[in-house]
Amino acid sequence: MSKNPVKIMETVLRDGHQSLAATRMRITDMVPQLQALDDVGYWALEAWGGATFDSCLRFLNEDPWERLKFLKKTLKTPISMLLRGQNILGYNHYADDVVEMFVKKMVEHGIGVIRVFDALNDVRNLEVAIKAGLAAGAHVQGVCVYTISPFHTKESYLKLAHDLVDRGVHSICIKDMSGLLAPYVAYDLVKAMKAEIKVPIQLHTHYTSGFGSMTYLKAIEAGVDVIDCALSPFALGTSQPCTETMIAALEGTERDTGLDRKKLKPIALHFGEVKKSLANDFKLKTYFDVDTNVLDFQIPGGMLSNLYNQLKEQGMEDKYQELLEEMPRVRADLGYPPLVTPTSQIVGSMATFNVMLGERYKMVPREVKDLARGKYGRTPQPVAAEVREKIIGSDPIIEYRPADDIPPQLETLKAQLAEKGYPNASVEDVLSYAVFPDVALEFFKNNR
Amino acid sequence: MSKNPVKIMETVLRDGHQSLAATRMRITDMVPQLQALDDVGYWALEAWGGATFDSCLRFLNEDPWERLKFLKKTLKTPISMLLRGQNILGYNHYADDVVEMFVKKMVEHGIGVIRVFDALNDVRNLEVAIKAGLAAGAHVQGVCVYTISPFHTKESYLKLAHDLVDRGVHSICIKDMSGLLAPYVAYDLVKAMKAEIKVPIQLHTHYTSGFGSMTYLKAIEAGVDVIDCALSPFALGTSQPCTETMIAALEGTERDTGLDRKKLKPIALHFGEVKKSLANDFKLKTYFDVDTNVLDFQIPGGMLSNLYNQLKEQGMEDKYQELLEEMPRVRADLGYPPLVTPTSQIVGSMATFNVMLGERYKMVPREVKDLARGKYGRTPQPVAAEVREKIIGSDPIIEYRPADDIPPQLETLKAQLAEKGYPNASVEDVLSYAVFPDVALEFFKNNR
Ligand SMILES: [Co+2]
Ligand SMILES: [Co+2]
Repeated sequence: MSKNPVKIMETVLRDGHQSLAATRMRITDMVPQLQALDDVGYWALEAWGGATFDSCLRFLNEDPWERLKFLKKTLKTPISMLLRGQNILGYNHYADDVVEMFVKKMVEHGIGVIRVFDALNDVRNLEVAIKAGLAAGAHVQGVCVYTISPFHTKESYLKLAHDLVDRGVHSICIKDMSGLLAPYVAYDLVKAMKAEIKVPIQLHTHYTSGFGSMTYLKAIEAGVDVIDCALSPFALGTSQPCTETMIAALEGTERDTGLDRKKLKPIALHFGEVKKSLANDFKLKTYFDVDTNVLDFQIPGGMLSNLYNQLKEQGMEDKYQELLEEMPRVRADLGYPPLVTPTSQIVGSMATFNVMLGERYKMVPREVKDLARGKYGRTPQPVAAEVREKIIGSDPIIEYRPADDIPPQLETLKAQLAEKGYPNASVEDVLSYAVFPDVALEFFKNNR
Repeated sequence: MSKNPVKIMETVLRDGHQSLAATRMRITDMVPQLQALDDVGYWALEAWGGATFDSCLRFLNEDPWERLKFLKKTLKTPISMLLRGQNILGYNHYADDVVEMFVKKMVEHGIGVIRVFDALNDVRNLEVAIKAGLAAGAHVQGVCVYTISPFHTKESYLKLAHDLVDRGVHSICIKDMSGLLAPYVAYDLVKAMKAEIKVPIQLHTHYTSGFGSMTYLKAIEAGVDVIDCALSPFALGTSQPCTETMIAALEGTERDTGLDRKKLKPIALHFGEVKKSLANDFKLKTYFDVDTNVLDFQIPGGMLSNLYNQLKEQGMEDKYQELLEEMPRVRADLGYPPLVTPTSQIVGSMATFNVMLGERYKMVPREVKDLARGKYGRTPQPVAAEVREKIIGSDPIIEYRPADDIPPQLETLKAQLAEKGYPNASVEDVLSYAVFPDVALEFFKNNR
């Protein structure tokens, strides 16, 4: 047994299928190998949060809370989930009482690890979720959302990590959602973090650009503690590096994981069949070529094809290249936000308007104005003055935490639900309704 | 510009589509981007040899010699090809005059780099090809076929590399056809070679187990000179690591390739469409999940499914696991040959007989007996005495170079062709007929 084994968080139950199968994996697809997954010896099993909550309600006719409770019945391995800070799992900021109750309930039902991130790396948007997670007794992991810009330096990430540790997180995750983190950059960043940050460092990447496994290898040499991997059928493409491969690559080295690859074989066979059935049942494309374009435009592959199709519908596909080049310009104008939900959509739609109308910032979606007004939090850099002037004139810019403006919502939501015919809605149902109101109502209609 | 840039051999025109599209890429698929490929600045473009010769004649109604001449008209970048030593591109040993003429003609028509390997790493089987390549003025690359066994050590590979250099090769290739070479093992092996071997070291791997890019990265750190990569649409899976990814990973480092990724974008777009059309026209599966099983059984993924299907046809699919375990045992019995054409087929069919008949070495294919008799050359270790006794009794074992037994063939082949109606067959046609007689005759019927 190595003295400093690399630990693995398995993502097949969440990010693996979110990345390669449109988050369509059903609880029935998981059941046959849950016990086996539990016996592998993973640091954690990521199995909730992200897009799974929405997908359960919207597409799978599953109650996400019931899924969690069910998983917890079998799994002793900690269950990890991905939380969008004050956005919870949705796209807007929620009141603190909703965030607090959501975190409390999910820990009560079985979440062991909360990974919490903010699209702008604005720590104020994470404070309530962190506090609630700590109070509930979960392992709380603070995220550094990785991006590339003149203002995202090794030093800025160290500062962010310190800020998170100061707020009590148990570990730090470097979240590279688009596969931008190059191997030798990862080495330097992790090395610097390991030297200064006292809590474990975990690395999360996507294989989009093909860097994935190389980036893990160099991060491992720099001392990273935990890596996120997906079992082979749900690995690579736009998903994580492959679990079995990383275990094998480290066998016999100083950082040998100590995990037994043999145990993974029947599990991988099963999930290989699951992938086939998801592809078939939901008409999904589950394979993606490596795409290094993401390195030049920082736009994840899936989003590129969406943008292209939008243009095509308007008969403007000849403007595609222009759009690709407009995206980084808009991102710079807006203060270099990392591109992750919801900022990726905000920057993407702004760039699309600019290109389609042939004039920049002529038509401006509300979300872009809100971003400029500070309603999503602090952008890494201030929005460029002439752009701000053009899109919000002299409107004031919020300097405080955006959710400070939001009064408590739970009682109102409960009352709304009662009005809609669910006077005895459980707290969990109120929370589902809070985050995805229309989808939740549709689900309740069929299931309550 | 870095002082020691990593050089890249692009495999999209040969191993890329051999690995992912059953070698079905047509010259018409290549033409639109040949000039662009030539302008990238690759060390070489692999575009001939391997299975392409057979595929041209058998499936594509193309004359492989004409393909080569056509490629040479556009390409200034050296064209590389893969040669199976005394087997040329077929499955048997040929007479020296055939090998010599084949090498002479292919260099005459445009081959710049000859990569020559023997399945058993028996240098005697490479001597004639090396000599002919040197005489013709090509760059001759000697291969160390990589495998894992108690007798394939760093020292054994160093000795093999020295033997090849002594015979005049211009460079050494470590050929890891099944993706067995783990990153840190690659580091040690390349480091040792760079310290002792005076010619450039090139590394060829397949992504089968998922090691590919990590293995290249560590080999690069150890000083490897050239890596074989495939353009993104024909990368990963059972093919090579991705060209664009490796270029990007090294950008700004000491080993920066100096190649411009932008130039590759239109080329990759084109070959992405080519992959789709090949998949469609030939009903091919072009995507493969990572498969670390290859590390345990050393059997490439494609072969595993062949073996499984063979068993299934006999209603014996329940013996699959037994077969997987029998393969390494047979390989050990037969002196640990690396598993590559034709040894992979030989070991695979022997193991299948053993498992299907329920008794080991009860029925023995002729090729297995020939291997034991030394007719393929020297096995890495002698065949186990009791197995040899059982399969060939006290038959003598050849101690000399197998091809020494083969009298000149060219005149005979020419006479045979005349008899079959082609009295004025060109030397190239005679060579095609030499290597793939039935396929060549069928091709001549439609094209001469
Ligand atoms: Co992710
Ligand atoms: Co190959």
